[in-house]
Amino acid sequence: MSQNAAWIAVDWGTTRLRAWAMSADDQVIEARSSDDGMVGLTQADFAPTLVRLMGDYLGRERMPVMACGMVGAKQGWAEAAYAAVPCAPPGIDQATRVQDAAFDLAILPGVKQDTPAEVMRGEETQIAGYLAQDPNFDGVLCLPGTHTKWVHISAGEIVSFRTAMTGELYALLSTQSILRHGVGEGWDEEVFAEAMSSTLSKPETLAMTLFNIRAEGLLHGLSPTAATARLSGLLIGAELAAMRPYWLGQRVVILGAEVLSKRYAAALQAQAVPAEMVGAEALTLAGLIAAQAHRKAAA
Amino acid sequence: MSQNAAWIAVDWGTTRLRAWAMSADDQVIEARSSDDGMVGLTQADFAPTLVRLMGDYLGRERMPVMACGMVGAKQGWAEAAYAAVPCAPPGIDQATRVQDAAFDLAILPGVKQDTPAEVMRGEETQIAGYLAQDPNFDGVLCLPGTHTKWVHISAGEIVSFRTAMTGELYALLSTQSILRHGVGEGWDEEVFAEAMSSTLSKPETLAMTLFNIRAEGLLHGLSPTAATARLSGLLIGAELAAMRPYWLGQRVVILGAEVLSKRYAAALQAQAVPAEMVGAEALTLAGLIAAQAHRKAAA
Repeated sequence: MSQNAAWIAVDWGTTRLRAWAMSADDQVIEARSSDDGMVGLTQADFAPTLVRLMGDYLGRERMPVMACGMVGAKQGWAEAAYAAVPCAPPGIDQATRVQDAAFDLAILPGVKQDTPAEVMRGEETQIAGYLAQDPNFDGVLCLPGTHTKWVHISAGEIVSFRTAMTGELYALLSTQSILRHGVGEGWDEEVFAEAMSSTLSKPETLAMTLFNIRAEGLLHGLSPTAATARLSGLLIGAELAAMRPYWLGQRVVILGAEVLSKRYAAALQAQAVPAEMVGAEALTLAGLIAAQAHRKAAA
Repeated sequence: MSQNAAWIAVDWGTTRLRAWAMSADDQVIEARSSDDGMVGLTQADFAPTLVRLMGDYLGRERMPVMACGMVGAKQGWAEAAYAAVPCAPPGIDQATRVQDAAFDLAILPGVKQDTPAEVMRGEETQIAGYLAQDPNFDGVLCLPGTHTKWVHISAGEIVSFRTAMTGELYALLSTQSILRHGVGEGWDEEVFAEAMSSTLSKPETLAMTLFNIRAEGLLHGLSPTAATARLSGLLIGAELAAMRPYWLGQRVVILGAEVLSKRYAAALQAQAVPAEMVGAEALTLAGLIAAQAHRKAAA
């Protein structure tokens, strides 16, 4: 540690903990992370886990912490009840506050939608980070990942959203199912585009095209590279078929990691929907900084 | 062992080995099984594994064995090359023969379809068992399971078939995915019917209805029983949407385990397709007996 931290920003997800030691003028002093996701922790573990990761930044005063993600779930450090759409991404006023020996903690709530039932925890803070840079955005944000979110934004508010488990399905099918025998490294843009287009235009075929990947490998030597691109294309095509109201005729911005964002952008481009891509890495931190700025203003 | 066996019938699948000691007049002397599926075996393991299971039936003469399933895959005991549709379920004439110290082994081949690419190993012997009882069957056989097969039969031949990974998807989603937190014991026929009908009529919705199960559990207390029935319904509805040419206006017979067969029968009945159900337990053995009868006739 080369510098005293004024506060700590925390993105505590299901499987990862990311934390940033921040200066008084909201510059990153140091970023750290660990595999101590909430899924492996009981309620009593959260504070000691954060002490273990960031302890050398702690002094005699309680350290202000601004956190988002599954840390606010019912099984998290403390529950931060969902805000309900339509709403702006929740800020410090809606946060759950916890004070213990070491921390003055604020956990930003997730967002829920009653009908159709939907929940997010963490994505709302990425959205807050995006809106901090582009407050007048009106359109759709796509946040690809394990559970991809499609979010309609208008007048600074989350109006509605839907979730597709595409990332989780892809991971399960490519590592745990019979298809794991055929998939591999690499990427084939053309195979992806063809598979994507086939389930987008004929979503009813999905159930019989998945096993076909295995049979093509056995009978016709489908390469592991092509199998991977086809699996991804079939699943993303099925997702786009479900999410049509979220992209058809809309302004779409994709907030995600580069490789995955490019797949979604290519899929949308094939439907004549130009999609911007914004790296999601920094957005969570930007959202946490925005919430912390309000906390300081209110203090 | 109370009686000498004349031959041994073997159904050797990916995860299970089932074997029957058979009398000269094709009566079951004893049925045994183990978890020694082909997935855990190398080529050299097969013979010793069968000796371990059935050794007390072996004498000084080589024991005739009639086998089907993954034992004939490339990574099996010996490869039995696929027969190609249209074809009758392969019999002893197409079998791969292996003689070693203990066994006079015949492995029945699986069946392949070049376009669209499809493969089966084991199901063709169940089909042979069914056709042994109803040689003039003309219609569609549905064999629900990990990889459900829909098979068009005419004039004693497998004309075409398709596979849906519905059973494997259900298992992965209900035990490995985020949905595992919400599913549980029990069954709700009405919830199943509603979910099945929703993806059958609107297959494009599948990608966004899966995560909805989790959100309904978190927000509206969806019961584990209802979550299970809904997940199953959504997946079987998507399968029926894909397999429409295989059941619409067809005579359908379901060959499967009772619980799963009833779900498919209910789904088809809701589409005004009356489906017969035939317990699949005995069909594999019936198919192996039919093949063994030809072997004896040829000897």
